[in-house]
Amino acid sequence: MASSLRLALLSLFILFFSFHSVSGLLTLPHPLDPLSKEEITLVQTLVLKKYPNSTHTLSFHYVGLDDPDKATVLKWESTKPHTVNISRRAFVIALVDTAIHELSIDLKLHSILSDNVHTGNGFPTLTIDEQTDAIELPLKYSPFIESVQKRGLNISNVVCSAFTIGWYGQEKSKRGLRVECFMKEESVNIYVRPINGILILVDLDQMKIVFYRDVSKEPVPSEDNIEYRASHMEPPFGPKQYSYGTFQPEGPGFKLDGHSISWANWKFHIGYDERAGVTISLASIYDLDMHKSRKVLYRGYISELFVPYQDPTEEWYYKTFFDAGEFGFGQSMVSLEPLRDCPPNAQFFDAYYAGRDGTPQYLANAFCVFEQYGNIMWRHTESGIPNEEIREVRTEVSLIVRSVVTVGNYDNIIDWEFKPSGSIKLGIALSGMLEIKAVEYEHKDEIKEDQHGTLVSANSIGVYHDHYYIYHLDLDIDGEENSFVKTDMKTVKVTDGSSKRKSYWTIDSNTVKTESDARIRLGTSPSELVVVNPNKKTNAGNDVGYRLIPSPAAHPLLVEDDYPQVRGAFTNYNVWVTPYNRTEKWAGGLYVDQSRGEDTLAVWTKKNRDIVNKDLVLWYVVGIHHVPCQEDFPVMPLLSIGLELRPTNFFERNPVLRTLSPKHVKWPTTCSSKQN
Amino acid sequence: MASSLRLALLSLFILFFSFHSVSGLLTLPHPLDPLSKEEITLVQTLVLKKYPNSTHTLSFHYVGLDDPDKATVLKWESTKPHTVNISRRAFVIALVDTAIHELSIDLKLHSILSDNVHTGNGFPTLTIDEQTDAIELPLKYSPFIESVQKRGLNISNVVCSAFTIGWYGQEKSKRGLRVECFMKEESVNIYVRPINGILILVDLDQMKIVFYRDVSKEPVPSEDNIEYRASHMEPPFGPKQYSYGTFQPEGPGFKLDGHSISWANWKFHIGYDERAGVTISLASIYDLDMHKSRKVLYRGYISELFVPYQDPTEEWYYKTFFDAGEFGFGQSMVSLEPLRDCPPNAQFFDAYYAGRDGTPQYLANAFCVFEQYGNIMWRHTESGIPNEEIREVRTEVSLIVRSVVTVGNYDNIIDWEFKPSGSIKLGIALSGMLEIKAVEYEHKDEIKEDQHGTLVSANSIGVYHDHYYIYHLDLDIDGEENSFVKTDMKTVKVTDGSSKRKSYWTIDSNTVKTESDARIRLGTSPSELVVVNPNKKTNAGNDVGYRLIPSPAAHPLLVEDDYPQVRGAFTNYNVWVTPYNRTEKWAGGLYVDQSRGEDTLAVWTKKNRDIVNKDLVLWYVVGIHHVPCQEDFPVMPLLSIGLELRPTNFFERNPVLRTLSPKHVKWPTTCSSKQN
Repeated sequence: MASSLRLALLSLFILFFSFHSVSGLLTLPHPLDPLSKEEITLVQTLVLKKYPNSTHTLSFHYVGLDDPDKATVLKWESTKPHTVNISRRAFVIALVDTAIHELSIDLKLHSILSDNVHTGNGFPTLTIDEQTDAIELPLKYSPFIESVQKRGLNISNVVCSAFTIGWYGQEKSKRGLRVECFMKEESVNIYVRPINGILILVDLDQMKIVFYRDVSKEPVPSEDNIEYRASHMEPPFGPKQYSYGTFQPEGPGFKLDGHSISWANWKFHIGYDERAGVTISLASIYDLDMHKSRKVLYRGYISELFVPYQDPTEEWYYKTFFDAGEFGFGQSMVSLEPLRDCPPNAQFFDAYYAGRDGTPQYLANAFCVFEQYGNIMWRHTESGIPNEEIREVRTEVSLIVRSVVTVGNYDNIIDWEFKPSGSIKLGIALSGMLEIKAVEYEHKDEIKEDQHGTLVSANSIGVYHDHYYIYHLDLDIDGEENSFVKTDMKTVKVTDGSSKRKSYWTIDSNTVKTESDARIRLGTSPSELVVVNPNKKTNAGNDVGYRLIPSPAAHPLLVEDDYPQVRGAFTNYNVWVTPYNRTEKWAGGLYVDQSRGEDTLAVWTKKNRDIVNKDLVLWYVVGIHHVPCQEDFPVMPLLSIGLELRPTNFFERNPVLRTLSPKHVKWPTTCSSKQN
Repeated sequence: MASSLRLALLSLFILFFSFHSVSGLLTLPHPLDPLSKEEITLVQTLVLKKYPNSTHTLSFHYVGLDDPDKATVLKWESTKPHTVNISRRAFVIALVDTAIHELSIDLKLHSILSDNVHTGNGFPTLTIDEQTDAIELPLKYSPFIESVQKRGLNISNVVCSAFTIGWYGQEKSKRGLRVECFMKEESVNIYVRPINGILILVDLDQMKIVFYRDVSKEPVPSEDNIEYRASHMEPPFGPKQYSYGTFQPEGPGFKLDGHSISWANWKFHIGYDERAGVTISLASIYDLDMHKSRKVLYRGYISELFVPYQDPTEEWYYKTFFDAGEFGFGQSMVSLEPLRDCPPNAQFFDAYYAGRDGTPQYLANAFCVFEQYGNIMWRHTESGIPNEEIREVRTEVSLIVRSVVTVGNYDNIIDWEFKPSGSIKLGIALSGMLEIKAVEYEHKDEIKEDQHGTLVSANSIGVYHDHYYIYHLDLDIDGEENSFVKTDMKTVKVTDGSSKRKSYWTIDSNTVKTESDARIRLGTSPSELVVVNPNKKTNAGNDVGYRLIPSPAAHPLLVEDDYPQVRGAFTNYNVWVTPYNRTEKWAGGLYVDQSRGEDTLAVWTKKNRDIVNKDLVLWYVVGIHHVPCQEDFPVMPLLSIGLELRPTNFFERNPVLRTLSPKHVKWPTTCSSKQN
C-alpha cells in the first residue's frame, strides 16, 4: 500500500515534470545543445525510478547528450526551417551498487532505451562528491591524526586532495583514490605545502581508507611568499598596470540563437559536455565569392589531457593523470571572472552538469565569447610605382570562445579563436600551481641524488612532468568526404648542369591511404598536412583544404610498453587521422580511470582503416615537457601554446580582400568636463 | 680661385653646421641613439669634402652609428648622471667611383678617423636611388619596348622592379641587378602581373643594361580580382567588422626619455639602423624582491633575412634574397598607419636614414610603441578547500614595439613584446604579395612538369620559397658573463624493480663548451636551451637564466654546398651561440650582395671559440617553408610565428605575484545623451 502510493506520487511527479519538460522542448533545442537543467532532472528521475535509493546505491558519473547520428544532424541542419524530427537522448554512466551501467535515455519519450553493464576494465569519471568524501576521511582517521601530531602540525589546518591511481599491471582493480594532504594555515596555496611521506589509499566503493603508511617525514615547506590573494598581501604592489576603457558602440558583432552563434562570416554551435568541456560544432564560413556557407568543422573539442609526472618513487609513481577521463574536463571548468578572465566586452554563458545524485549543478560564467581587436589582418605598402603612394592596411577583429578548466592545481585556459580569414586558432595556456614534493633540501648543492624535479624554493621540488592535450577535430572540409594529404618538401639535386643552382626543393603530395600511414611524428621532416575535399576543386584545379600549422612538437619520453604510456598511447604520434566513428570520442578510452589501454586511439587505428575520401577525424596532440622553474612558483605566469587550422586553397583567393577595418570611435567628452 | 672660393664657402658651411650640430649634441644623446638628421648631414658634408662630386662619383650605401665598445656603453650606463665622456662615431660604407670605402667618422671632432677600401668579395647594400634608376632603364631601351609591343602591351603601363642577382660560382663579380617588369593598368598590384620571359641585367656602375634576352612569351595574368585598395573596389564589402573605442584615462604606462623607454618593470632603448631596422638595447627588468634592475638583453635585432626561391630555371634561379644585407631592413621600413598598423593608443617614432647622396631621408611613423590589454597574466581557482571560494585572476598589460619592413612584395611585421613577467616575445608576421611567375596554364590538370610552385590563379604560379629570419640576441643575463646550458630530457628505464613504472624521464644539463657544440638543429630531441649566469645563483642554488621557447623549427632544404646555401649558411642550424665580438653583427656577412659566404656566422664559428662564462650572443633562426596557396593571393592574410625568451630561475619566484590587474574604466555617458 505504502509502496503503491509512492509509485502513484512518482507517476504524478513525472507527469507534471514531463509537461514542464515538453514545454521546454517546444523551444526546439539544437540537436547538439547540452542537456538543460530540466533534462538533467528528467534523467535523474528516470534512473531513480528504475534504481530507487531505497534499494540501491546510485551515483551518476556521466550525464550528457547522446548526440544524434551525424547524418541526422546534418540533415536537420540543411533543412530550413529545421522541421526534421530528431530524437533527443541522454547517455548516462551510473554506478548502481558497484556495477557500471550505461543507459541511453529518450528525453522526448521519457524512457530508458537501453541499460547495459560495462564489465571490461577501467572505471568511469570520478564524481566531485566522492572526491569530497574521500578527502575528508584522513581527518577522522586516527593513524593519520597521529602522523600529523607526530610532525607537530595542527590537524585543523590540514586539507586533503584526491588523486587517481593509474594502473600498473595488476590483474584485479578496484575503484580507489590516493589522498594526499596539505597545510592550509594563513595561505590558501595548499599545493606548495604538502605533508609528504604519508601513503593513503581510499576504497571508493566502501569509502574508507584501506591502506595507510607513514613512510618518511620531510618538512612541510614554509608559507613565506606563497600567498597569491592580493587581499592577503601587504603593499607594495607592482609593477603598476595602467587603467583602460573599451567600448563597442554598435554592440558586439555576433548574434546568438541559443547556443548557435553567427559572427562575421562564421556560424557555429558552442556546446558543453561535462567530460569534454566546450565543444565547437557545425562551424561553417560564408564564402563571399560563392555566395554560400561552406562547412569546415563538424565538431572539435579536447578529447583527453594526459599529465604523467616523472618521479618513479613509491609516493609519486602513480601520478599519471588523465584530466578529461578521470576528472571530467567540463565538470572541472570554473566560473570565469568578468573583466579579468575575459575582457569587458565578453558575454558569458552558464552550464549545468549532473552531480553524483543526478541533481543539476549550476556553473555560472562557464565560458565566454568576445571579440578581440588590434591585430593586423593584412597589409601592403607599395613603394615601387613612380609617383604613387600606396598603403592599405586592414585591422582584424577575431572572435574568441574561452573557458578555463582547473583540475586541482593547474588552470588550463582553452581558447577557440575564429578569424574572418578562415583561420581557426586553437590556444592552450597553462597557469595555476606546480605540484610540489617536500624535501629536506634548501639548496641545490645539498642534493646528491636525482630528485626528479627542480628545487623551486626551499624544501620544494617542482616535479618534472608533461602536459599532452589531444584535440578531436572532426573536419568536414566543404563536405563530409575528405582525404588527408601529406605534402613533403624534398630536396632535388641538379646534376645535369641545367641550372646554375646545385639544388632546390619541391613538393611531393600524397593522399594518405590508411590510418597507420597517417600517424605522424612531427619534426623529423618538413611537410604540410592538409585535410582536403578531393571532390571539390578550385577553379585552378587545387583540392580545397585546410592545413594544420602545428605547435612545436613534443614526443613521449616513456618507453612504449610502460603502463602509463600504454594508457596514454595516443601521444605516440602528434597527428592521427581516423574515419569518423560515432563511438570514437575519447582518445584514452571511455573508461579511463585505471584503464589498461584497450580502448585508445592507438588501438582503434590498428584496424588500419581506409581514410581516402571518407568522413575524417584529425587528432592532434599538443605537448609540453615541463621542467619547472622558480618563476612557476607559487603561481605560474601563463605559458601559451597554440596551433592553427588555416584554409589552403579552400577559397579562390584571400577571403578578406573585401573586408574593411573596424571604425575606431573616439572616447566621448564626459559631461563633467567643460563643453566646447 | 673659383676652387678656393668653393673651399671657403664649404668651410663656412661646416662651421655653421658644426655649431648647429654641437648644440644638437648638447642634448646628450644616448650612446646607442641612431644618427640624427644633423649627424647624417654632417657625415655627408665630411665625406663630400674628401671626395667632392666635382672629381668623384660618390654614393652612400650605409650610414649608421658606429656603436661604442660595449664596455664603454655599460660604463656610461652604470654611471648616473651619465657623465662618462663617450665618443660618437658614424660608420659609413660609400662607393667612391667604383671602390668600396669604409669610413669611421668622429661626430664630435668632425673628422674622418679612418678610410679603408674593401677589396674582398661582396658588395654593399643597395641604395634605393640606384634601384630607382635601374628600373627606369628598360622603359627607354628599344629591345624591351619592342618586346612589350610584340606582346600587345602598352609600355606606358609597364612598371619594373629590381632584384639582386646572388652569386653562382663565377670568379669575377660586378655590381649588377636583374630587372623584371610588370603591368600596372587599373590595379596597382604589380607583383601578380609579371611580364615573364624577359631577362634584363643592369650593370650598376655603368647604370646600363648589359644583357637582354626575350626568351618566352607567357601571357600576363589577368587583372581580375587582384585589386586590394578599397577605394578602387565596388561594394559589397564584407564581412563587416564592428566599431570599437579604447581609452587610457591615466595615459600610457610608459615614459620616454629620447629613445629610452621605461614601462612597468622594464627599461630599454629603441634604436634604428638603416640595415637592421629596429634594435632593442640595454633591456633590464626591475626585481621587486632584490630592489634593483637586472640586465637581460644588451642588444637584439634581426641580423639577416634570407629568402631563397625554389625555381632553378634561367628566369628564377638567382632569386635568393638577403633582405637585410642587400636591401637594408631599416631602409625598407615603411611608415605605419595610425589606428591600423598600430592600435589607437600607440605612439609613433620617426627615423632618418641616408639617401644615396648622403642627404637624410625622413621616415615618419617608422615604429610604434603601445600597450596591449586583455590577456590573462596568471590565475587560479581553488575549489579544494572546504567552505572557501578562491579565485584570483590577473590581467596582463604588455608593451609592444612594432615596425613593418616591406621589401618589394612582402611586408614583414616585426614585434617585440615585453611582459611584466619577464618574458620577451619576438613576433614575426608576413603579409603582402607572393612573387608570381606567369605561365600558360589556367588549370592544374594542364601542368605536366614541375612548375616550382602552386597555381594560385589562372596563369599565376606562386613559387615555393623559404623565409629565414635570424635574430642577433646579445643576452646579458644579470651581467655580461654568461654560459649556454643545454638541458636534455632523457628516458630512464627502470629494470631493477625499484618502481612500478618501467620508465620515467629526467634531465641532463650540460654547459656547452664551444661554438661548434652550441650549433643546434631543433626537433630531433627534446631539450631546454637556457642562457645562464653561472656566477649568480638563486637562493635555492639554481643558475639564473633565460630560456628560449622556440617556434616550430625549419631546416634548410638546399644542399650545403649550393651557392645560395653557402651564402646563407647561418640557416644550417636553428640555434648558434658565439662569444661577443663587436664586428660579428651580420649573420650573412657585412657585404652580402653577391657574397661568397666567406664572412658568415657559419665561418666565424669555425674558430670554435670557448663560450663558457663569456659575454655571449645567441642567434636564432625563425624559418618558414612557404608553399603558396590561393588564399595568399592577391594579398596574403597575416601568417604569424614567434618565439619567447622566458626567465628561468632568473627570479626567486613569479615576478608578477604582486602585480594588480589594470582597472577597467566604463564608457562615460556622453553629453548628447540624457543626464541622470
